[in-house]
Parts: sequence; structure tokens; C-alpha cells
Amino acid sequence: MSNLYCIKGDILYTKDFGSFETIESGYILIEDSKVKGVYKNLPEKFLKVKVTDYKNSLIIPGLVDLHLHAPQFPNIGLGLDKELIPWLETYTFPEESKYDDIEYSKKVYSKLIKEIWKYGTTRCCVFATIHKESCKLLIELFNTSGLGAYVGKVNMDYDSPINLLEDTDNSINDTEELLKEYRDKFPLVKPIITPRFVPSCSDKLLKSLGELAIKYNVPVQSHLSENRGEIKMVADRYPNEPNYASVYNSSNLLGQTKTIMAHCIHLSDEEITLLSNKNVYVAHCPTSNVNLSSGIAAIRKLINNGVKVGLATDISGGHTLSLIEVMAYTMQMSNLKWIESNYQDAPLTTAEMFYLATKGGGNFFGSVGSFEEGYDFDALVIDDSKEEPFNYLSLEERLQKFIYSGDYKKIKARYINGNIVNEPNL
Amino acid sequence: MSNLYCIKGDILYTKDFGSFETIESGYILIEDSKVKGVYKNLPEKFLKVKVTDYKNSLIIPGLVDLHLHAPQFPNIGLGLDKELIPWLETYTFPEESKYDDIEYSKKVYSKLIKEIWKYGTTRCCVFATIHKESCKLLIELFNTSGLGAYVGKVNMDYDSPINLLEDTDNSINDTEELLKEYRDKFPLVKPIITPRFVPSCSDKLLKSLGELAIKYNVPVQSHLSENRGEIKMVADRYPNEPNYASVYNSSNLLGQTKTIMAHCIHLSDEEITLLSNKNVYVAHCPTSNVNLSSGIAAIRKLINNGVKVGLATDISGGHTLSLIEVMAYTMQMSNLKWIESNYQDAPLTTAEMFYLATKGGGNFFGSVGSFEEGYDFDALVIDDSKEEPFNYLSLEERLQKFIYSGDYKKIKARYINGNIVNEPNL
Repeated sequence: MSNLYCIKGDILYTKDFGSFETIESGYILIEDSKVKGVYKNLPEKFLKVKVTDYKNSLIIPGLVDLHLHAPQFPNIGLGLDKELIPWLETYTFPEESKYDDIEYSKKVYSKLIKEIWKYGTTRCCVFATIHKESCKLLIELFNTSGLGAYVGKVNMDYDSPINLLEDTDNSINDTEELLKEYRDKFPLVKPIITPRFVPSCSDKLLKSLGELAIKYNVPVQSHLSENRGEIKMVADRYPNEPNYASVYNSSNLLGQTKTIMAHCIHLSDEEITLLSNKNVYVAHCPTSNVNLSSGIAAIRKLINNGVKVGLATDISGGHTLSLIEVMAYTMQMSNLKWIESNYQDAPLTTAEMFYLATKGGGNFFGSVGSFEEGYDFDALVIDDSKEEPFNYLSLEERLQKFIYSGDYKKIKARYINGNIVNEPNL
Repeated sequence: MSNLYCIKGDILYTKDFGSFETIESGYILIEDSKVKGVYKNLPEKFLKVKVTDYKNSLIIPGLVDLHLHAPQFPNIGLGLDKELIPWLETYTFPEESKYDDIEYSKKVYSKLIKEIWKYGTTRCCVFATIHKESCKLLIELFNTSGLGAYVGKVNMDYDSPINLLEDTDNSINDTEELLKEYRDKFPLVKPIITPRFVPSCSDKLLKSLGELAIKYNVPVQSHLSENRGEIKMVADRYPNEPNYASVYNSSNLLGQTKTIMAHCIHLSDEEITLLSNKNVYVAHCPTSNVNLSSGIAAIRKLINNGVKVGLATDISGGHTLSLIEVMAYTMQMSNLKWIESNYQDAPLTTAEMFYLATKGGGNFFGSVGSFEEGYDFDALVIDDSKEEPFNYLSLEERLQKFIYSGDYKKIKARYINGNIVNEPNL
């Protein structure tokens, strides 16, 4: 029984979309790195297993961030009275061009990963920049940290600022080099193919990246339908494609391997069906979408149509690396979407939103984001005992208080893949 | 020169709606409790004045919260997947009925005021409950704290839960007793007439409160046009009034004395004109409005039509006592309103939003919320030096970082009416 251990506390997670599983003073039994069971009372055969008792603390699955831009970390909170394109030109592109400097990259990325850790994110999907070496550095740093991550070298060889414009062949070759080197190197940190978005990629690049995805069986991440101006650019360039999503699909970048598309705000019904059929994950980025005046994604509609959805911070379009805050915004934006949809798309309940923040995005990483049997044991231990409540609170209400307080300092332990992960020493 | 002192730092404030005044390493000269001048270089005749040098810290006006419900503090973050009416019935009314218990009131209100202080709010307008004694307690506690506040005993004698339903004459008499006792008792804490909203007040009560407002020349605060269901209730009850706002006006509760109306989301053009003509202040509550699916107030339109606007947390419809967060939401909701208005109502700039958070609401309290000559010296000193930026940031960008980080712990000193105010010892 040496590979068995147990933690005890007030357990809350979601198995199904829309309902909480809760056990007050319950036990989670972990075997190797995986959940073996959750119990109100520990079965007799496990009574000798070592128990860590997080008395009166909430234990929830780790939070999963499906979309963020590592090099934009220095710009968090800046320029958010601009729309997407001017914001890109004023803040984002100038910053991203700095990451050919490995020292600068190290300074930013080390601090970034500590911040991701701080807010209780246990797994994330990350855009780096076009620069191969700093992308490798970012992969190595994530591995050292103990966090789980997909990290992508960004590809852009079309209609981009001159100092971020790649030669097409170099872009493809650098990507392949990264895939070969890191595909099987680390258990929790992996490369991912990352065309920035259609407007900044040539057709040849898109097609070649799709070929690499299939050849190495690696996942894909990109942006889709964030902004009306962006959509028009794609429509003008591809008059023979029925829609934006189909451009990715034609290049084998839409579900031919596991795929995440960020934003997905202005999708047509045909695109929603396509995403659903192709098992594409939508990274919902409510903070970014409201900061950059992009609009509100129709999350209820996407889910009703069978599309997989997870949550994302999307820094620095998003103003915070905290998924705790993003959870609150997800609720709020679903309220506004309810109004916008003329009361058709019902607001998300707390349980529905929490599913998206944990299991919804977690499943992109495998069996992640729940305490069901066989799931990787990723968890946050939240000590809310110092904030003495004036009234009795249920576990769900305590979770609501945690979410709406945004107070990451209540997180007193983080487990990833069965291991306690302390503040990264980077 | 004994009543003169000076503080030095990176000064940022708004004199006019839409533009920042900034002075790096500048001086604010204070005489008694009021700003005498702001200088890049201190004039020679003041060179002997004692200077407190807040090196590298931002100095901004204190934040003003025009609308919050003190008794709802225990419910912060709870039940925000409900709309206004079910939320009131499940959470708000049961909690508010507890404040006939003075011990419970003391426990909640003491903690509340410390929290308000913590987030850098220097002045606020507060709803208590119907209970006279706990309202008096709240006034006394605010006075002890050093914060500035208008505090109102709530009036409700109509269509309300039985344990919050007042006898009309008692409601009027209790209100008058409070006005007499506290009208001139404290320099920074004052009573304010507070009909909950039209649906919970009889016509006799509204009329009597309007008479008291004029008799004692005291201000008024209430709710207006938050929710479509609420508006319909008012329209059904007052078929001869042209709109909701006019019901208050007919009772002398709309600008006959200084007045705040919270929310004002679904106003008709006639109501906007009325509010403008009557110099009514709108308390914009973006967090509350998005939490309770109320909608987005047309702040740009209100301002363009000459209506005065300030910001408010509206706990616990709002999920936070932090005006820092409310500032970010104000920007974000103005972005969404831009879309909703078919790109007619331009989003707020950072400078415009910051004016609302400081001088916009501050002017309800007199000359408050700016560093112009003659203004009460209310200020926050924000030490952002620990968060070493990766790039040079302007004062405006440092303010943006502070706002979007929501990190109140950066506030290292608070001045109210010329005095340093430390954490209240309540």
C-alpha cells in the first residue's frame, strides 16, 4: 500500500455538467497519481492509509486555463480602453518582438509561472512567441515548476509586423524541431501547434502545420471569431470558404488532432455544428472579450449544441491571470447573454460554470478536473476558516464566497498529478 | 504656518471629465483640511512647510462609493445566480430582518467598516435597515472610523416581508428622530433619507419623507429603474404618473434636496431629462447590475445629457466592496454598452471612468474627489514599487495596472478631510 495516500476535507467537484458532488469531512484516496475513490467514510481496508486532514478546508479540483499568452504578461492591465486591433499594435506586437532576447524571456516567464501558480491554476495552454529558443525555455520552466502545460511556438508569416514576420520554411522547421524535441520529453508539459490565427498565416503555413499535427499526433490551438473586423479579413481572403472555422478545417487544424479555439464569439450555426462534430474545445475568455469590446460568447448555446467548453484568462487581453476571477466573469457574462439573447440562453448556474473551470477544460489534458476514479489528482485546498461567516454556509456557498472574493491567498495547498506543488523556485 | 503641510509623490487626478492631471514627483500643499495647491516645484514661500515624501508612490483622490447596503455585507458573493426579486427573497430580506439585534448589528457593521476602509473608499452612501437603533450604531461607528458617510435608515411600509414591514407613522417618526439627532452631530457622517424604493413605500410615506427632506434640508437616496419587473410594478401602481422617476419627483424626493438614485438602467429619455434638470446623482453599480442580470446603464448617454454620475459597489448585489474592481467593471460595461447601443455610446476612457470614481461621486459630499484648490484633502497613497515593471510605465499606465490588479494591499496611506485614517479600531 506504499503508493496509496489520502486527504480529508470538505470536498466539492462536478462529475456532470450542472450538479455538484459534495462531501463534508470526506476522504479522497489517491493511488500513485490518480484518484482511486471519494468517500464519506473510509472503507475498512484503507483504514491504515496515511491521511492528511485539511480540517474545515474546501478541497476542489485544480483550475484549468485553456488560453493565455505568456509574452503579454508584462502588459497585464494596460491599454484596455482600446479595441483588439489598435491594442495589438500599441501593446502586444511591440512586446512580443522582445522575446528573441533570452534573458528578457527568462525574467518575464519565471515571474509569469509563479503568478499562474499563485492563483491556483494547475494546467494551462500557452501561446509563446515566434521565437524558438524562448519557447524552449518556457517549456523547460513549466516542467521545473511542476505545473501542467501545453506550450506553443507561435507561427506568423503573413500580414504581420516586420519584426514578428517569419519566413515560412523557418516557421515550419522550427515548429517541427520543437515537436521532435519535446513531444515525449516531459510527462506534464507538451508542445502544441499554434498558428496565431488565420489572418497572420499564409495558406502554405496553415497546410504545413496541419500536416505536422497529424504526422506527430500533437494538438492544435488558435483563435477563432473574436472580433468582427478579424472575421471580415478572413472572409475577404477566403471567398470560397463557407466560414472562418472551415479555413482551419481545410488545413487539418480543426479537430483532426485535439484542438482548442479561443473566443468563438460570433460563430454561425454552421460553425457551431462543425466545432461540435470535430470535438473542438472552445476556450471561453470572458475578461478578454469584455476588455477588448469583442462581445459575449454564446456559451449556453455552444454547450446545448454539444461543443466542449473550458475557461481561460487570455492575458493580456484578459486583465488577470486569476481563473478565480474569470469564474465570476463567466457567470456575469452568461447573465448578460441571457438578456442579449432575448431570454433564450439561460444564465449559467454556479455548478455549470464550475464544471467548465475544472473538468470542462481539464478533459483537454486527459482525465483531469474531477475527483472521479481514474482522474489525475489535481486539487486545491482552500482555507476559508479565517473569514468567519456570520451565518452557516453550505459547501456550494463557501465556494461562491471564494470565487467572488477572488482571494487566492486562501489557497493553502496545490496538488498536481498527485504531487504537492509549492511555489516554483525559478 | 502651523496648519500647513505638504505631501510629495506621483500625483494623478481629474479636474475635468476626460483628462488626467499628472505631476511626477509633485507636491500637494494642504491647509487645514483642504488642498491649497498642487505643484511640480514648491513655491519659495512654502519651502519651510513640512513635506512627507511618498517617494515613487502614486497619490490619487480617495474613492467614493455612492451606494451600498450595510446589512447585506454577510451575503457578499452569495446567490448571484439569481435575479433581483428571488435574490431579495432568498438572501436579502431574511438577512436584513436580523438588525433589530444590536449585538449582531455591531458585529457585522464593525467588520464592514474595516473592509470599506481596506479597499481605499474614503466616502460612502449607505443604506442601513428599517431599524432605528442599529442605524444609529452604524452612524456612530462610521464617525469613530474617520470615514465620511451618509447613512440612511431604510423606510418600507408597503408590500414587504412581514418582519420588514413598518407602521407608516413609526417609520416617519423614527426617521425624523434620526435627522434631528444626527443632522449636525458629526462633521463627516450625516443622515440621509432612504425610502427603499417606490414598490416598498406607501404613497403617504413617500410624501412624508419628501416633507422631511425639505424641512431639515437633508439629502435623499433610493433606487430607480434597476429591473424591468420593478418598473412594471411601479407603472401598474401609478397609472397617472408618466414614469418611475416622476413618482419620486411628485413626492419631493428627486432633487428637491440633493439626491442619489442607484442603477437607472432602463430610463426613458424623459426620465433622463428630469434627472438632469433636477441635478440628481446616478449611482452606477456595474457589478450589481451584471450579477443580478439587470442590464447595463447607459452611462455615456446619461453624461452626454448632463446627468451627474458616480460609482458604487452596491453590496451585496455587487459582489465586492472594492471600488478598485468596480472601476474595471465600469470600463468593461461601457465597452459592452458600446456594442449594445450599435456603436453609438462610446466606451469610457480610463480618465473618464476615474473622474466618476473620484470627483463624480465626490461632489455629492461637497468639494471632494479632486486635488483642486479648496477641495477636502481625501487621498490614497499607492505603493506600486514592489511590482517591478518590465517596461517604463506612465502615471496613467501605473493607475491602470493598479485598477486591473484590484490589489488594495498597495494602498499604504489614506487621508480623509486632511487626516491620515488608519485601520478603524471598532
